[in-house]
Amino acid sequence: MKNNAKPDGSLILGIDGGGTKCKAVLMSADNVVLGEGTAGPGNPVYGLEQAKDSITNSALMALKQAGIAPSELANITVGVGLAGVNLPNHYKTIMSWQHPFKQIFLATDLLIASLGAHNGGDGAVIVTGTGSCGFSYVNQTSTILGGHGFPQGDKGSGAWFGLRAVEQVLLSLDGLGKTTQLVEVMQRQLNVKNSEELTEKVAGKPASFFAQLANCVFIAADAGDEIAISIAHEGADYISAMAEKLMSINPPRISLIGGLGRSLFPWLSNGLKNALSAPLSTPEVGAVYFARQNIQALGADESLSTVI
Amino acid sequence: MKNNAKPDGSLILGIDGGGTKCKAVLMSADNVVLGEGTAGPGNPVYGLEQAKDSITNSALMALKQAGIAPSELANITVGVGLAGVNLPNHYKTIMSWQHPFKQIFLATDLLIASLGAHNGGDGAVIVTGTGSCGFSYVNQTSTILGGHGFPQGDKGSGAWFGLRAVEQVLLSLDGLGKTTQLVEVMQRQLNVKNSEELTEKVAGKPASFFAQLANCVFIAADAGDEIAISIAHEGADYISAMAEKLMSINPPRISLIGGLGRSLFPWLSNGLKNALSAPLSTPEVGAVYFARQNIQALGADESLSTVI
Repeated sequence: MKNNAKPDGSLILGIDGGGTKCKAVLMSADNVVLGEGTAGPGNPVYGLEQAKDSITNSALMALKQAGIAPSELANITVGVGLAGVNLPNHYKTIMSWQHPFKQIFLATDLLIASLGAHNGGDGAVIVTGTGSCGFSYVNQTSTILGGHGFPQGDKGSGAWFGLRAVEQVLLSLDGLGKTTQLVEVMQRQLNVKNSEELTEKVAGKPASFFAQLANCVFIAADAGDEIAISIAHEGADYISAMAEKLMSINPPRISLIGGLGRSLFPWLSNGLKNALSAPLSTPEVGAVYFARQNIQALGADESLSTVI
Repeated sequence: MKNNAKPDGSLILGIDGGGTKCKAVLMSADNVVLGEGTAGPGNPVYGLEQAKDSITNSALMALKQAGIAPSELANITVGVGLAGVNLPNHYKTIMSWQHPFKQIFLATDLLIASLGAHNGGDGAVIVTGTGSCGFSYVNQTSTILGGHGFPQGDKGSGAWFGLRAVEQVLLSLDGLGKTTQLVEVMQRQLNVKNSEELTEKVAGKPASFFAQLANCVFIAADAGDEIAISIAHEGADYISAMAEKLMSINPPRISLIGGLGRSLFPWLSNGLKNALSAPLSTPEVGAVYFARQNIQALGADESLSTVI
């Protein structure tokens, strides 16, 4: 089928517009992956035009891989998950897009991640990467916990761990906090010798920069560093509390997803560790499930439908 | 003298290049203020060209007020205090300036603040405004503690208190932290009803925005709010510890300066409260003292001399 596929109305594109890359998957009615594509940043919060380009480009790559002409884009229905579309301002800007597809179903990045993790069914996800957030989708009701961005929110995220670590290292280097292994680990990673060099290195940096320093906390904590252990506990306790609150909604499954999960797992509460199930599929496949569910529920009357 | 003053080599301009405004003062050899000027932002860290313009414009205003022609700028020696010039990169960019004055003596904003607070003599200052920093100048040796910028440093500053408050209010609104009066105080001040509106309001905002929320902490703390009290103690304890470390250098005087001082004072340690002396003059007057001391010590051989 791969090189002579024809869109017959049953093909669906699923797209996950993430902060660093945008991933697309083209699936047949029987859930066979026909093609995949990856393009640049797809998060409209950090650049709307870039996000639209990345969504379109990742979709075209998936079509090309499936042997389908670019012009067929106009005949294909798309499910798209984007960060921030639960906020009124970002929702409005996306809604005004003259997109190149047959129809778009727009969801949050969280909903498609959860649908992906639970094969299209109800469930909850704890996302810990550069940011952090909790989400559940149970009986057609979405619940979002946390998030709120850097530096004011996203507790227990990579950026949060990195920022807390930098704060503590600066206190240590000034002689106003205990000097522990965390200082040496961070100085080595950033190749800085003192607080002036560290200050210059981190000044004005975005969340993604601080997230790359999260590993300093876990390296130092594993070596028994008391400050790093305290930071690891504070972040992980928050994530565990957020998960417990989500579990009170009784999602059938709950999964931990995102790049920080492996480092964070040992620090989570035993209750959460025991409750976690492995994610079954990717967010972009979740976007396909989302579009398919909404085609059935809502029909194809509108070119851009939103069910968040 | 005011309307027929002539520069005779003994007049000195003192300039304080702050983050929101740049202040200049023109003083005679016997410390009479002949003119003053205020221009836009003068901190080169946030815009070099803007800072240069503000320095020149504030100086021209001071000359005008003294009845001195703008062309005389080239015959007047200037003491300038600027944030960040202790960092190599910022130092280099300022050093390359083809300035319009006879001679510039360049110092950190901290050194001119300390010289102003202590009438040109040795001493220490604790600066708490949008940012926070400790500084002492004793026996021609400068010591800087803290600073390091937002959000990673500047503990106990306005921006730090505002950020900690927003963090706690977001936790409360998510049901993952105690709900206290701090929530209501901040919701009223920012005119927001829930965590989504608060998130949108604070996303991507600079330190100056968060500093405007510091008062929420002190209002709620005065009303007995336990979370606000805990934040106030943590910030003030850091400032007290920083001051105690500076006092171990034995500065003859120590002063608390900056816009947050009045709110912070009741929370400081008794030791620091008892040690504090009122600042005697402004940072721009301190810049005049600085220039005068260095004219005597170094002569006028170089058009741009730095003694930080």
